Amino acid sequence: MNDEFVPQWIIERKRDGAALAEADIREWIARYADGRLPDYQMAALAMAIYFRGMSPEETLALTDAMMRSGDTLSWDGLSRPTADKHSTGGIGDKLSIPLAPLVASCGVAVPMISGRGLGITGGTLDKLESIPGYDTHLDSARFREVVDRVGCSIIGQTDRLAPADRKLYALRDVTGTVPSIPLITASILSKKLAEGAATLVFDVKCGAGAFMKTPADARALADSLLAVARGAGRHAEALVTAMDQPLGRTAGNALEIAESVEILRGYPADAGEDARELVLRLAVPMLTLSGVARDETAARALLEKKLASGAALETFARMVWAQGGDPRVADAPEKVLPQAPAVVEVPAPRCGVLARVDADGIGRAVLLLGGGRRAVTDAIDPAVGVSRLRKVGERIEKGEPLATLHARTRAEAEALVPQVLGAFSFSDEPVAAPALVL
Amino acid sequence: MNDEFVPQWIIERKRDGAALAEADIREWIARYADGRLPDYQMAALAMAIYFRGMSPEETLALTDAMMRSGDTLSWDGLSRPTADKHSTGGIGDKLSIPLAPLVASCGVAVPMISGRGLGITGGTLDKLESIPGYDTHLDSARFREVVDRVGCSIIGQTDRLAPADRKLYALRDVTGTVPSIPLITASILSKKLAEGAATLVFDVKCGAGAFMKTPADARALADSLLAVARGAGRHAEALVTAMDQPLGRTAGNALEIAESVEILRGYPADAGEDARELVLRLAVPMLTLSGVARDETAARALLEKKLASGAALETFARMVWAQGGDPRVADAPEKVLPQAPAVVEVPAPRCGVLARVDADGIGRAVLLLGGGRRAVTDAIDPAVGVSRLRKVGERIEKGEPLATLHARTRAEAEALVPQVLGAFSFSDEPVAAPALVL
Repeated sequence: MNDEFVPQWIIERKRDGAALAEADIREWIARYADGRLPDYQMAALAMAIYFRGMSPEETLALTDAMMRSGDTLSWDGLSRPTADKHSTGGIGDKLSIPLAPLVASCGVAVPMISGRGLGITGGTLDKLESIPGYDTHLDSARFREVVDRVGCSIIGQTDRLAPADRKLYALRDVTGTVPSIPLITASILSKKLAEGAATLVFDVKCGAGAFMKTPADARALADSLLAVARGAGRHAEALVTAMDQPLGRTAGNALEIAESVEILRGYPADAGEDARELVLRLAVPMLTLSGVARDETAARALLEKKLASGAALETFARMVWAQGGDPRVADAPEKVLPQAPAVVEVPAPRCGVLARVDADGIGRAVLLLGGGRRAVTDAIDPAVGVSRLRKVGERIEKGEPLATLHARTRAEAEALVPQVLGAFSFSDEPVAAPALVL
Repeated sequence: MNDEFVPQWIIERKRDGAALAEADIREWIARYADGRLPDYQMAALAMAIYFRGMSPEETLALTDAMMRSGDTLSWDGLSRPTADKHSTGGIGDKLSIPLAPLVASCGVAVPMISGRGLGITGGTLDKLESIPGYDTHLDSARFREVVDRVGCSIIGQTDRLAPADRKLYALRDVTGTVPSIPLITASILSKKLAEGAATLVFDVKCGAGAFMKTPADARALADSLLAVARGAGRHAEALVTAMDQPLGRTAGNALEIAESVEILRGYPADAGEDARELVLRLAVPMLTLSGVARDETAARALLEKKLASGAALETFARMVWAQGGDPRVADAPEKVLPQAPAVVEVPAPRCGVLARVDADGIGRAVLLLGGGRRAVTDAIDPAVGVSRLRKVGERIEKGEPLATLHARTRAEAEALVPQVLGAFSFSDEPVAAPALVL
């Protein structure tokens, strides 16, 4: 380390493949956060990091410095252990919504700060806001109160949580420096560590509909997240999960809330139902690492019990109510959630076994129906989307519905039928349901 | 190419190793030059170019776009062909000063736009400004007039010449993106092509005292400069030359003018004198490519004739006079140029053959004496420096002067003796004078 802090020397060190000193990383982020270090030097360093990478020690220092650029929450004094889950995002990924109340009903507090959707990837906050009255903008005192009383709360990021990340993320988005594992790790974990949960479980999506296209990339991100989370003193586990077809049978905001309620109701206890199964797989380490279940078997038994007893659904209703939403959504989602005026089925053009359901194509259809954002300022229509999606491995007769479109007008739905059909491929041979966890 | 110009997509293409489309490069530079494209995207692209390089076609498009960001000069209607030389810079490199009038005296016009020194590397403009009255700020009409009447003129860069380069150079300096061959090529040639000379000769320095440390790097830069200059329709030649020991026997502004006058006077016609020899080696292609000499033999004969007849010295005196300087500098430099108050010899601590004279160490001594700039805003003392430098391969007796220091005070000179001594290494065996052109 040099006594004098010269930003271009630090950029040059990273450019030439050397590791940066922890003190230099901390000083860099402190200066970037308060505007003393210009965006052009941050952009050059980010691109050098893209090419040269960062060691786990550097990534931990970067993450910690970004976390400390804002407020950090503490759950000291809470009667229960705390855990949270982070997903890298995919089509139809509504898992946080049933997961948080399910885990909370098992005695682990889940303080979850979540995000909005952009492009074809939906956002948990947008989904929750399709519940009339649900408020995602709680201040930290109210957030703590809901977590304390209900056991879980899902809110949006505040300006005071890891502001250096918000600034850097916006810069990375316009400088071609998004797909860098250390930068992704620091972005995710600066917020998740600030949130203060003692246990973190990561769902790293992999496949055509995910940011990470190959298992090797997904595993590298999972390893990086684990190294930094554990380096920061948290319990952590990661699952690399498939994101080739959409998760579950719906994509679209209100439709995914309805599916979440079905999962919490116990919903076809068929092990083949991927969304339900993945909720359980992610919940298990949240319970075991928090010490409320001895092992996987005990954890699964506890989770199934809370689903069957209705305790998980009840916790969901209490969270919705505590955040200003209509709790009847838990009993009769179809009466509470907005409904799209036009509902159109997409019939199978042939019989056969589904060989592929392209998550990207379905995500794009939801976006075109008005259920997603092209730009962060776009408004979304909570009611539109796709439901009753058929899954890879299922046998279909000609004319049977492959999916149901929910649209603002019949014409809009019909115009998208070819787009949706294009997402499905058929086989004449049996096709195994794909593995959920890789 | 995309119809829509999205800067981050262009950054991503370069980041992923693809070649950029010519139209995208032109649009990029046009937007950067007029401020529509922010520094942070330019910095990210520059770092991606650092890692991924550019093809000769891309480099030519970049250079041409940068050249067109400002004025370009035309020498149509001049009665003589035009040629210029560019050096990548080294310690004691005063070659432009004798070269321009020498080549002009042979019938080739030399419109030379030159730079200032920074760090340990001196600048031609600073050297010329040690001549009382010499004005480096001519407007383009006056520049043309001096070139037309005298045959050569050496001036400074104006704000209107390749402004995109000035902006990008300042950015590269603070973002760790200086050492990139395509970016260096575009920076040098955007200005040199705008200057309009039909023939360009490059002196690419290589060695401990140069920017390019290895012959491979120097050759890569030379190849890139030639490809782009020729691609832009210019005659071009490049020499890779040694920069391990200082060039010539002086380093320091006025001292190098005095040495330039000695070269123009015919100065020890000893082939071992590197500065004189390199002036001739660089002048030869300027004459042959311009068509005023058939081949190297004819060119050398013409050059020697113009040195011996005094025509080259006379052209120098006329250029100095035309630019407001005192032309008597050509007859009696010691009477016209500023003299340092303290002159101190550095005696050899032992006898032996000089094995190494470190250009960097001598350059640093000149800087410490006040003859260079640490920052662009620093003032320099034209009188100080080092003269009578002994060269590698020369046999020295103990106590003989290795160099003479010219300083503001005797104390300042004496304080630097150890620094200067540290630049010299001795051998007990004969050492060959190093090759000048690699």
